Amino acid sequence: MYLEKISSPHDLKKLSHKQLEKLAQEVREFLIENISKTGGHFSSNLGVVELTIALHYLFDSPQDKFIFDVGHQCYVHKILTGRQDQFHTLRQYNGLSGFQKRNESIHDTWEAGHSSTSISAGIGMAIAKSLNNETGDVLAIVGDAAMMSGESFEALNHLGSLKSKVIVVLNDNEMSISQNVGGLTNFLSELRYSAKYNHAKHNYIGFLNKTQFGKKIYKITKYIKDGIKHNVLEDNIFHEFGLDYIGPVNGHEFKDLINAFTLAKEMDHSVVVHVHTQKGQGYYLAETDKKGVYHGVSPFDSSKGISTVASQQDTWSHILAGHVQKWMRQDEDIVTLTPAMISGSCLEGIFKEFPKRSFDVGIAEEHAMTLAAGLSASNKKPFITVYSSFIQRAYDQINHDVARMNLPCFISIDRAGLVGSDGETHHGVFDIGFLAPIPNLTIMTPKDSKEMKMMVNTIFSDFSRPYVLRFPRGVVENSDVDLESTIEIGTWTYEIESNTAKTVVITYDHKVTQLKAEIEKENLDVELINARFIKPLDENVLTNILNRKQKVVVYETDIKCGSLGSMISTYYSNKQEFVEIYNYAIDDHYTPQGTVPQLLEHEKLSVQHIMDHIKEIIDAKGKN
Amino acid sequence: MYLEKISSPHDLKKLSHKQLEKLAQEVREFLIENISKTGGHFSSNLGVVELTIALHYLFDSPQDKFIFDVGHQCYVHKILTGRQDQFHTLRQYNGLSGFQKRNESIHDTWEAGHSSTSISAGIGMAIAKSLNNETGDVLAIVGDAAMMSGESFEALNHLGSLKSKVIVVLNDNEMSISQNVGGLTNFLSELRYSAKYNHAKHNYIGFLNKTQFGKKIYKITKYIKDGIKHNVLEDNIFHEFGLDYIGPVNGHEFKDLINAFTLAKEMDHSVVVHVHTQKGQGYYLAETDKKGVYHGVSPFDSSKGISTVASQQDTWSHILAGHVQKWMRQDEDIVTLTPAMISGSCLEGIFKEFPKRSFDVGIAEEHAMTLAAGLSASNKKPFITVYSSFIQRAYDQINHDVARMNLPCFISIDRAGLVGSDGETHHGVFDIGFLAPIPNLTIMTPKDSKEMKMMVNTIFSDFSRPYVLRFPRGVVENSDVDLESTIEIGTWTYEIESNTAKTVVITYDHKVTQLKAEIEKENLDVELINARFIKPLDENVLTNILNRKQKVVVYETDIKCGSLGSMISTYYSNKQEFVEIYNYAIDDHYTPQGTVPQLLEHEKLSVQHIMDHIKEIIDAKGKN
Repeated sequence: MYLEKISSPHDLKKLSHKQLEKLAQEVREFLIENISKTGGHFSSNLGVVELTIALHYLFDSPQDKFIFDVGHQCYVHKILTGRQDQFHTLRQYNGLSGFQKRNESIHDTWEAGHSSTSISAGIGMAIAKSLNNETGDVLAIVGDAAMMSGESFEALNHLGSLKSKVIVVLNDNEMSISQNVGGLTNFLSELRYSAKYNHAKHNYIGFLNKTQFGKKIYKITKYIKDGIKHNVLEDNIFHEFGLDYIGPVNGHEFKDLINAFTLAKEMDHSVVVHVHTQKGQGYYLAETDKKGVYHGVSPFDSSKGISTVASQQDTWSHILAGHVQKWMRQDEDIVTLTPAMISGSCLEGIFKEFPKRSFDVGIAEEHAMTLAAGLSASNKKPFITVYSSFIQRAYDQINHDVARMNLPCFISIDRAGLVGSDGETHHGVFDIGFLAPIPNLTIMTPKDSKEMKMMVNTIFSDFSRPYVLRFPRGVVENSDVDLESTIEIGTWTYEIESNTAKTVVITYDHKVTQLKAEIEKENLDVELINARFIKPLDENVLTNILNRKQKVVVYETDIKCGSLGSMISTYYSNKQEFVEIYNYAIDDHYTPQGTVPQLLEHEKLSVQHIMDHIKEIIDAKGKN
Repeated sequence: MYLEKISSPHDLKKLSHKQLEKLAQEVREFLIENISKTGGHFSSNLGVVELTIALHYLFDSPQDKFIFDVGHQCYVHKILTGRQDQFHTLRQYNGLSGFQKRNESIHDTWEAGHSSTSISAGIGMAIAKSLNNETGDVLAIVGDAAMMSGESFEALNHLGSLKSKVIVVLNDNEMSISQNVGGLTNFLSELRYSAKYNHAKHNYIGFLNKTQFGKKIYKITKYIKDGIKHNVLEDNIFHEFGLDYIGPVNGHEFKDLINAFTLAKEMDHSVVVHVHTQKGQGYYLAETDKKGVYHGVSPFDSSKGISTVASQQDTWSHILAGHVQKWMRQDEDIVTLTPAMISGSCLEGIFKEFPKRSFDVGIAEEHAMTLAAGLSASNKKPFITVYSSFIQRAYDQINHDVARMNLPCFISIDRAGLVGSDGETHHGVFDIGFLAPIPNLTIMTPKDSKEMKMMVNTIFSDFSRPYVLRFPRGVVENSDVDLESTIEIGTWTYEIESNTAKTVVITYDHKVTQLKAEIEKENLDVELINARFIKPLDENVLTNILNRKQKVVVYETDIKCGSLGSMISTYYSNKQEFVEIYNYAIDDHYTPQGTVPQLLEHEKLSVQHIMDHIKEIIDAKGKN
C-alpha cells in the first residue's frame, strides 16, 4: 500500500512511474469505497486520478498554486494533501468540504462552487507572483464545459495579453456534468481525434523521452515548442487568444502527463495543456454513464451500482418539468431552456418529446437568460429553469433584458433555500433579496405540487409579463391538477383561520405544510398564511392583520436582509403603522454544509424552533 | 438632398451606389450637426454610417431584425427609419432614446444599454423564426470590445451548434470605447492586416462583381464560400465556434459591404461578417481620438471640437482616482483594475504612473471581480472600480468570490443613483438592494470628497475585509485630505443637531450637503444625519432616535425596495419597536432618461419635494 504513506505531496516525489500507477489504483479504490458511503462527486474525481497525482508529483504545492475550477473534482487533491483520515466526513456537517476550502489546508488556495472562476483567480495569483518576484507556478484545472462559459473566455482573453504565467489545464472529459453543447465542443472533438493529435504527441513526447526529465529539457524547450507550434497551434482557439497550447494528452498515462507538464513547467509564459480524461474511469457504470447519474451521487452499494429506477419521481423539479411538458403539448409557442441542467432539472422528458423546442446552452446563465428575452421579444413563451444559486450569474440579464423590457418569460428557480451538503456556494438563499427590488417581476412560491401546477397554469394562460416561480430542493407529494386551474395574482391564502387568534404566522413553500401540521397537532390558536406571492404582497391580508392588531411571525429559511419579513415590515412602516412582527430567517452570514435538518438546527430555524417562538409570542403580552 | 426624402428604409432601395455615397455624406453631416447640439454617442455613430445604410439597403426591416449591441451606435438606424424629425430631442426627457427602444419604432426589435446581449437575443429571434417557418434574417451588430465579453462568447458557442441563422456583424473599429485589451485583439489585428485579408476579399468580391447582385449570386455561393473557406476560415476563432466567416470588409466602401452582405444573406446558416470601420470617420478629431473623448460627448462647438482642457477635474471619479494614486505611491501592494473604463473612471494617471500595477481587462466585469479576489487571496490589495449599473454583471462574483471567502478588496461603485440621459439601463439605483443582503460586505457612501478620501484611507489602512464605496455621477468640491485621516466603521454623523427637534432626516452622499443647505436656509428644527454607512447601520444613532421618539425622514434616490429606508424600518421592526418613518425613494419602476433635475422632478424626489414633506411632517401630529 502506497496511499497510506502519502501524508503530503512531498511523499509522492519518491515514487517511480510504476509506483505512481499502483498508487493511482489505490486512490481509485479509496474513492469508490468512500464516496459510495458518503455520497459526493464521483465520476469527475475518478477521471482526474492520474492527472492530480502527476501534477502533485511535478509541482510543489503550496508554492505552486492548485486551483480546481468548480472544485468538486478536488478529492484526489485532498487525499494527497493530508486529508485521508477525515475523508469519511466528506460533505457532512462540520466535516470535509466537497470543494477546496482555504481553512482546511494550506494546499487549498482558492474556493469555488460555481464554475469558470479558476483562470481569473489564477491570473490574480500569477500577477501577485510577478509583482512580488516570487517563483512558482499557478495551475487552473478546468473542465471542458466550464471552459466554455463566459467568464473563462474573458479570462483566457486577458491572460493572452499578460506576461504573468498561468498553466491552464483543460480537463477534457467530453461531457463535464452531462454531455456538452456548443460549437466549440465539435472543435475540441476534432482536435482530439485529428491526425495532429498523434503527430503533436510524438513530436514533443519523442523529444522529451530522449532527454528524460529535468534540466536537460530546458535546453531544447524552445525547439520543441516551435515543433509543436507548427503542427498544432496555428488553427487553435487558444492560439487566437494569444496562448500557447500542448496536447491533447492522454490523461490516464503518467508518461504522457509528466512529459507534457514538464514542458509546461519549463515555459516562461502561459500555456493551455489539453488533457483528455474519461469521467468515471475505473468504475464501468460511471464510465458509460452519459446522463450524469454518477456525477453527484448519494450513498450507494458500490458492488451493485446506483439503482436505475428513477428516484426523482417526486422531486419538485420533476413534477414541474412534467407539468410544463403537458403544457408544451397544447401550446406550441412554449420553448424550454436550461444552462447545462437537463438532468438536475429533470428535463429529459421535455428534451425527448420536443427536441426542436428545448435548448441546453451549456454553463451559460447569462446567455440563457438573454436568449429567453429574445424568444419572448419574438412572441415565444420561454420557460427557463435555473438553480437559485446559479441564477446569480444572470442578475443583470433578468433585470435589464427581461424585466426592464417587461418581456413575458417563465423563470423557474430550482433549489431555493438551503440545499444541504454542497454548502455555502449552493444554498439558494439570496434570490428573494436580489429579485424583489426589480420592477415588473411577479414572484411566486408554491406550498405544494398542486399549487405549483396551478401557478404554472396561471403563468402559461396569461403570459403577459415576467414570472418567477421559486421552489425548494427535494421531494414533495405529487397531486393531479388539470391545466385549467389557476390562482389569482398577488393573493395569499389562510391555511388556518381563527376569529380569536391574536397571532398570525406567515411563511411560504413547503414550510407552510410543515408548520400547519405542527400547529394543528399542538392545537395553537394562531392563523397560518401561505405567502405564495413574494411579489406583489397581498395588501388585503396585510390590512386585515393590521385592523385586527394581530402579532405576526414570519418564518423563512432565506437571508433575512431583503426577505419577505423585511418587505412586510417595510410595508407597514411606509404607512407609518405599527405591527408587532417577529421575523425568523437566516442572519447576516453564510450557512455551511450539512443535511438540511442539521442546518436548520444550526440556524435555529427548524420547525420546532419556530413552534417554540410562536408559543412564547402567543403567551406574551402584546406591544400593540 | 437625399436624406430628407428617406422616411423609411424602403426609400433607400431606389438609390444607386453613387447616391448612397452622397446620402452617407449627408447622414454624417446630420450627425455632426445634431449630436454636437444634443450631446450623445458621437464617434461610434460616425463609424457605422455606410454599414447601417448598406444593411438597410439590402435587408428589409422589420421582417429582417436589426439588433444593435449596446445600442448607442443606432443613430443612423434611427435616422433611416423615420425619426429624423425627432432627432433634436435625442437623450432628452420624453425625447428619442440614445438606444434602440421598442416603443419608438417597429424597426427597434430589441433594447440594450449593456454590452454583449445582441447575439443571444438574435438567437432567440432566429429560433422563433425557425419554429414559425418565417423567412427573414436576424442581424446582430456587435463592436469588437463587446464581442470579447463573456456573454458574446457564450452566445457564439451556442450559435455554432444551431441550425437557426443569425448574421453576426463584427463592427471592428479597433478600440470600441477606448483601446481594446486582450489576446484576441492581437488576433483580430493580425486578421485585419494579414495577406489573407486582400486574398479573401478579392476572392469573393471578384466573383460577386462578375455576377452583379441578386439571384445570380445564389448559384455560385457554395463555390465562393469554399473559396473563402480555404483561405481564411481554417485558422479563425469563429470557425472553431462552428461558424462561417466573411471578411474583413472595408466598412466605408459600399461595394465591399454590399457584396459581403449579399453573400451573407444568401447563406442558409449563421455567419460572422467582419467589418472594419473607423470610429469617428468624417470628423478628424474623432478619427484620431485614442482616448475616447469623442465616444460620448456633451454638446460642443463642432467647428472647434471638444475643449481638451480636462473637464473632469472635479468629478467624484477623478478625485477618487487621484487619491488612490497617492496611496499606490506608498503601498506597493495596491493593484488597480477596471473593466474597460480607464477614461470613464479617470484612471489615466494611475495607468501611466503604475503600468505594472494597473489592469484594464476589457468589458469583462465577471472576470474583473474574480481577478480582484484572486489578487486578494495572494495578499495584494485590489482596487476595482465599476459603474453601479455595470457591476450588476458581477453580482455572483462579489457574493461568492469576494464576500463568501471574506477576501479584502476595495470595490468602488461609480455612477450610483440617477445618471441622466443614458436612461433606464444606466441608472445605478439597484446596488444597495442587491449588495446589502450579502454577508461580510461593508458599504460606504461619502457625502463629499473629504469624506470619500477619509474612507479610502480607512479602507487601505485596514484592508481586512471587502469594502464597497459608492458615489454618484458628476462633480463635487475637491478638498485636501492627508492619508492619515480615517473614520470609524459603521458610524453615522449628525450634520445638524438639535435638542428640540422632533424630526430627524437621514440621507447619504451629496444629498446630505444639498439638504443641509436648504434646512439651514429655512431654519427648520430638524436634525440631519449623514448615513455614510449603508452597511452596517449605526445602531447607536438608531437607538438614540428611538429613545427620543423622533419621526424619521429617509431620503434616497435609489429603488425603495431594499433601500436604506427599508433597512431602517426593518431594524426597528425586528426589535418590535415603532418609529414613524417616511421613506422617499424610487418606487417600483424604471426611471426614464432626462437631466438629473428633470428625473428628480419626475420621481417627485427633488430636494424641494423633500423639504415640502419635511415641513408637513414637522407640522403634523405624531403617531408615536
